[in-house]
Amino acid sequence: MSEITKVALDAMGGDHAPGEIVKGAVEAVQKRKDIEVFLVGQEELIQKELSQYAYDENQIKIINATEVIETAEPPVMAIRKKKDSSMVVAMKMVKNGEADAFVSAGNSGAVLVGGQLIVGRIKGIDRPPLAPLIPTAKGVSLLIDCGANVDARSSHLVQFAKMGSIYMEHVMGIKNPRVAIVNIGAEEEKGNALVKETFPLLKACKDINFIGSIEAREIPHGMADVIVCEAFVGNVILKLYEGVGAVLIQKIKKGMLSTLRSKIGALLVKPALKETLKSFDASEYGGAPLLGLNGLVVKTHGSSKAGEVSNSIIQCVTFKEQKINDKIRECIKED
Amino acid sequence: MSEITKVALDAMGGDHAPGEIVKGAVEAVQKRKDIEVFLVGQEELIQKELSQYAYDENQIKIINATEVIETAEPPVMAIRKKKDSSMVVAMKMVKNGEADAFVSAGNSGAVLVGGQLIVGRIKGIDRPPLAPLIPTAKGVSLLIDCGANVDARSSHLVQFAKMGSIYMEHVMGIKNPRVAIVNIGAEEEKGNALVKETFPLLKACKDINFIGSIEAREIPHGMADVIVCEAFVGNVILKLYEGVGAVLIQKIKKGMLSTLRSKIGALLVKPALKETLKSFDASEYGGAPLLGLNGLVVKTHGSSKAGEVSNSIIQCVTFKEQKINDKIRECIKED
Repeated sequence: MSEITKVALDAMGGDHAPGEIVKGAVEAVQKRKDIEVFLVGQEELIQKELSQYAYDENQIKIINATEVIETAEPPVMAIRKKKDSSMVVAMKMVKNGEADAFVSAGNSGAVLVGGQLIVGRIKGIDRPPLAPLIPTAKGVSLLIDCGANVDARSSHLVQFAKMGSIYMEHVMGIKNPRVAIVNIGAEEEKGNALVKETFPLLKACKDINFIGSIEAREIPHGMADVIVCEAFVGNVILKLYEGVGAVLIQKIKKGMLSTLRSKIGALLVKPALKETLKSFDASEYGGAPLLGLNGLVVKTHGSSKAGEVSNSIIQCVTFKEQKINDKIRECIKED
Repeated sequence: MSEITKVALDAMGGDHAPGEIVKGAVEAVQKRKDIEVFLVGQEELIQKELSQYAYDENQIKIINATEVIETAEPPVMAIRKKKDSSMVVAMKMVKNGEADAFVSAGNSGAVLVGGQLIVGRIKGIDRPPLAPLIPTAKGVSLLIDCGANVDARSSHLVQFAKMGSIYMEHVMGIKNPRVAIVNIGAEEEKGNALVKETFPLLKACKDINFIGSIEAREIPHGMADVIVCEAFVGNVILKLYEGVGAVLIQKIKKGMLSTLRSKIGALLVKPALKETLKSFDASEYGGAPLLGLNGLVVKTHGSSKAGEVSNSIIQCVTFKEQKINDKIRECIKED
């Protein structure tokens, strides 16, 4: 029998906490026998939600934590002061080896700060990147880094490329993933100072399949599996993806309702279109891992509902089974 | 009677040159009596295209230039060596006051280099930004800078904000345009080093209506009229806009053809949808001005057809009428 993956889940984080978070935990354990979830947060509230569902009681435990880190709180202060918050308590469980992974839909900044301060970095990793999967015409690509630590150095970007490759190969099952750096042209001499400095380092790196520069236009077409960039640029890409998608879909819906003829057509295309748009919805692909930590930390969207929470929990199993952190340690040690 | 706007048009630049470029010139003069176009390039080729159309011969003249700067040529070398290219000859006409504006669908880099080396910068302007209009849910916004000069300083960004404001107010007719800086969060303390340094300067700038940071997600929603950013980020935004739009539309079309029911629906929604998508197509809004030069330089898409060429030519009239460069000179001088 396979090992059990233990996930400490922040029951109090996110727009739909604790209701949808608890529901997501239940859905995950209903799907998989090899998962144990610790619902961390205010016991009474969690218990009340949990009592609505039927599930194997060996698979879900409540861990009481009285405080809550709010979405708008300054992250460093929140992590330092709120020792009995769901986030701090859950991340300590990962630190102490009581859990393999931490999943949260809460305050992004606090997840990033807590990941570094509490869970801690793998020796040799300078900066743990946040690496969401983004939908493309061909499937998904890993966008690394989208975190809060901006103005990275070239050595950081090389580590992002290596960790991203390991993740895409062993968690997502993409053999020899294509790694590209975000640039403003295809030629090697193009780019800003950071890209020009990083390009030859990636080219010389034996651990990755570096295919060169990628222009932003090519990202949605799925022209690379691992998209390396500095966090400011990654953040812009991630958020613009959402924004353009949302506005375009809104415009299309409005366009379809503009004439009687198109209204009838809209009714007929609706079911097929819904499926299509689902495949281009980032929330279908679970949470974003914060890589390079002594344990797995996963940040899911603040607006996550049960489905995304459940996907994010299940994602942790492959991460553990494939011993991703051992692979990262080995790859970084070699330098 | 209003003054004549004289436009030097690069007849040899772009994927569809000279055919669509010449056609665009004809369309522009058919629409407006107050425009004179100089078709600059290989005379015989241009004459052959032009002979197909009926137009007022006082409004179109051919200026012979024997050389052509190709799309892939290194820009600086091309501008320096090809003295008799359509680009160099046309830009010299602007420099010498024989034309008010230069419009090209050719080699972007060469347009930027030639703009600075031949047409020349307005005194006090450190870096002329390329500023395309991008479609939003509410209309269009000006994205400034998307050019080739990356790693800008904060003082450059302040100039971008001022020039962008003047353009949106007086060319696009948006009163007191909202200016925002691209950032990874709404709070003033967020951002990379450049944004943190620029934010208070923009806040203190009396010439503009600064509304603070804009996250990339909000750009397509039209939350600001002038979107200020460093060129690397601007380039990523512009190209990702195109990429996400293209892939999403491709997916939607495929989705509509997936079942018999949706195929019938697709036929019915097609005309309404086409109109909608047109409003979200960047090429509908003419070319991107390169601001801060002693004359107007406009870069249109390499794939421009007659319609976009014609729009870009007509755009030059308002630029001249509104004396945009005098307004820029005045605004920069005050510092």
